[in-house]
Amino acid sequence: MSTRRLHLNAFLMNTGHHEASWRLPESDPYSSTKIAHYANLARIAERGKLDSVFFADSPSLWGTIGRRPSGSLEPTVVLAALAAVTEHIGLIATASTTYNEPYNLARRFASIDHLSGGRVGWNIVTTATLDAARNFNLAELPDHASRYARAEEFLQVAKKLWDSWDDAAILGDKETGLWGDERLVYPADHAGEHFQVAGALNVPRSPQGHPLLVQAGSSEDGKAFAALHAEAIFTAQQTLQEAQAFYADIKRRAAAAGRDPDGVLVLPGIVPVIGDTEAEARELEAELDRLIVAEYALGNLAKQLKLDPSELDLDRELPANLPHEDEIEGAKSRFTLIVDLARRERLTVRQLIGRLGGGRGHRTFSGTAEQVADAIFEWFDDGAADGFNIMPAVLPSGLEAFVDRVVPILQERGRFRTEYTGTTLREHYGLARPENPRRREALESAVKGVLAHAR
Amino acid sequence: MSTRRLHLNAFLMNTGHHEASWRLPESDPYSSTKIAHYANLARIAERGKLDSVFFADSPSLWGTIGRRPSGSLEPTVVLAALAAVTEHIGLIATASTTYNEPYNLARRFASIDHLSGGRVGWNIVTTATLDAARNFNLAELPDHASRYARAEEFLQVAKKLWDSWDDAAILGDKETGLWGDERLVYPADHAGEHFQVAGALNVPRSPQGHPLLVQAGSSEDGKAFAALHAEAIFTAQQTLQEAQAFYADIKRRAAAAGRDPDGVLVLPGIVPVIGDTEAEARELEAELDRLIVAEYALGNLAKQLKLDPSELDLDRELPANLPHEDEIEGAKSRFTLIVDLARRERLTVRQLIGRLGGGRGHRTFSGTAEQVADAIFEWFDDGAADGFNIMPAVLPSGLEAFVDRVVPILQERGRFRTEYTGTTLREHYGLARPENPRRREALESAVKGVLAHAR
Ligand SMILES: Cc1cc2nc3c(=O)[nH]c(=O)nc-3n(C[C@H](O)[C@H](O)[C@H](O)COP(=O)(O)O)c2cc1C
Ligand SMILES: Cc1cc2nc3c(=O)[nH]c(=O)nc-3n(C[C@H](O)[C@H](O)[C@H](O)COP(=O)(O)O)c2cc1C
Repeated sequence: MSTRRLHLNAFLMNTGHHEASWRLPESDPYSSTKIAHYANLARIAERGKLDSVFFADSPSLWGTIGRRPSGSLEPTVVLAALAAVTEHIGLIATASTTYNEPYNLARRFASIDHLSGGRVGWNIVTTATLDAARNFNLAELPDHASRYARAEEFLQVAKKLWDSWDDAAILGDKETGLWGDERLVYPADHAGEHFQVAGALNVPRSPQGHPLLVQAGSSEDGKAFAALHAEAIFTAQQTLQEAQAFYADIKRRAAAAGRDPDGVLVLPGIVPVIGDTEAEARELEAELDRLIVAEYALGNLAKQLKLDPSELDLDRELPANLPHEDEIEGAKSRFTLIVDLARRERLTVRQLIGRLGGGRGHRTFSGTAEQVADAIFEWFDDGAADGFNIMPAVLPSGLEAFVDRVVPILQERGRFRTEYTGTTLREHYGLARPENPRRREALESAVKGVLAHAR
Repeated sequence: MSTRRLHLNAFLMNTGHHEASWRLPESDPYSSTKIAHYANLARIAERGKLDSVFFADSPSLWGTIGRRPSGSLEPTVVLAALAAVTEHIGLIATASTTYNEPYNLARRFASIDHLSGGRVGWNIVTTATLDAARNFNLAELPDHASRYARAEEFLQVAKKLWDSWDDAAILGDKETGLWGDERLVYPADHAGEHFQVAGALNVPRSPQGHPLLVQAGSSEDGKAFAALHAEAIFTAQQTLQEAQAFYADIKRRAAAAGRDPDGVLVLPGIVPVIGDTEAEARELEAELDRLIVAEYALGNLAKQLKLDPSELDLDRELPANLPHEDEIEGAKSRFTLIVDLARRERLTVRQLIGRLGGGRGHRTFSGTAEQVADAIFEWFDDGAADGFNIMPAVLPSGLEAFVDRVVPILQERGRFRTEYTGTTLREHYGLARPENPRRREALESAVKGVLAHAR
């Protein structure tokens, strides 16, 4: 049996995942619009042989611009630019099924797959904020269930479009002047509840066939969707027990949906704060927490909990009367995670803000490179993770520390690649290129025609 | 008075604008999905100090794949990739106002403007094919007038979004923890007939303020729209007289709309076929025409003329009874151009197909580099053009010939730059960065508030 290998994704976000990271002397507060910053980060991740880099996204301005870097370049065009300046690393962008049309989005991902030589992934989200809805002709956030119903049909259409050219459709026969075989183009011919899409994509089938499909919702609907479509899952898990339960649940659901559970990789987030000593790491974390403007963070927390800021007291625990997850139409699973964390550890609002400021609900781990490697192996070996979503508190320095100090330990222990062995993102993650079901259908119907004739 | 300078755009399309170009021994029939091909072309154009490169687009598979390269990478992601491998040249992509949402598209262009350092342009089209409509939930092509009405409101929203951050909105003050000045973000707050868009863009104002706005419709609605919004106009004109009339019409309309006519550049298309001698150029053109598969081209022509293929005879002129432009809901102006060309020169259908196969209605000019330069100056000096949309019949060789043989003549005569003098696409075209009207409005209302208080 070959050794099970770790998979590592670097989640990139301007000056880092800690909300006060931009205030450190080393940080460039204007980095969010600078492609050179992201090119540098992608190259660092590639130096570390990571599987991929990833960008979150929402089509709206998040909160106000007062207290932390806001605004971000649209991630699909960022991926295209990064494809030109990297060679191996996978490139994953978030895009919303609620605020895009399948023809446009399927085409953009297929195009980036071509121009990156098969390195693209799509983090499929349904977008949980009212602000986004109000940028797209809506007065209200569409409810959770209907967003996921649209997402489900969106994926059906996208897959038909990605499969609408046979791999063998292009002939390029200069002699006869026959460029392509029209019989090997399969129009989407989709007529559903949300979408009617008649034609074939205007992009030939891409190197990976489909982009790597990633998903990050952890609600019931989110997990059901993931079990059907996702090949990698990002998730926020605070404790080993919760992470194990989530992991088992996802694998069970994938199997129940008739899929190979090994084809669905679970990647919990981790915010590693790395020091030469544990004390140094803790001091860096504390320094960052001191830079949080508590009053501002309090407003954001209140919004996530559907409370008025006046209902929260910085030096007390959360109030007893909180809404139930069922009342949350936005990000359900994140709501529950925050409340559980606060209750379990009996955190004051101020303490909770510190914990969330570091990784917005993701697990923060401060320690030496050895300790971080151990923490990674603990979850990896104990049925909680197939790899990790690395979310450095400060960028680029936190990613450099991870790549230069933690990755070599993972490699020494034989659990992480020392060179890229494949060329596509699917190959990095050990996943197959999807076959084209349309081809089989087309062949079957051709055979039927011949048989009917022969009778 | 300073010398008036030519502006040159290179219109890039897989193996070239001649529909049979892919059959030449030098052509790679698989080039349409290869970013290396486009990167090479963009670098050649940059070597020639051209203003920009440009990609046409429609969100549908055009015709069938049988006879010529079909399918193309989505142009905005192509621009993003090209931005990473070029330094100076402008990058223009086509995108449809009919099949996009303003928030998504305005954001993508603003993002590319950031990542290219201010080099992006948008060719605004309303998309004239039924095939596209049927990929976006529609059974019929929306009529011409309603497409342009949507385009008009789309531009209003896009401009509000591009202006939704003041240039001074980001403070980046690490000391106080104040990243931005919330008062300098101006939400779009748009509630119109086609669009309701509440928020600000989630991208800070870009280097150019707005992308360069390009337009390519020549119908009445198209010209009215261009007069209001376009800063550069691509157009297909066959004769000097027609081109002069179009040029004068556009400049008059721009002035009538209160704009500086010099701020609206008219760039007719030209398909230059360049040889060491005129005879050599003509032979190259003839060789290409011989490679056209006439029966296939006939089908396309019939479609454009709203006829059945059986109504066309390869060896006769067009039938007398043709529809009127008013009955065309698709590309009105192209229809009229084709019919006028055929009637004026009394072309048989076969001859017409040859002429259209070269440049799809654009002017083809075969000759030596000197003759091409003379043809360019004739129109440029005679009130027909501010520059040209260069559409090489074969790529890359036709672009190389233009850059290496025609451009030096234009430069020797002092009418074309020998080095880039600016850094943005607007600077290349001699156009100003738009001011932000939202800032003035915001200041005025602040002043009013202070005055009211003072009373
Ligand atoms: C690592 C990670 C990244 C995420 N990125 C995004 C994102 O970029 N955009 C987004 O709308 N939601 C993002 N989400 C949030 C989930 O998609 C979120 O839970 C979703 O909005 C609501 O789904 P749920 O109610 O099923 O949990 C992310 C979640 C995780 C764990
Ligand atoms: C050089 C040039 C390039 C064009 N590129 C596109 C294009 O990429 N996509 C498109 O839909 N139309 C394109 N057009 C066509 C015009 O936009 C077309 O005329 C339009 O579809 C209908 O407008 P009209 O009826 O106002 O002429 C182009 C036209 C010219 C002259």
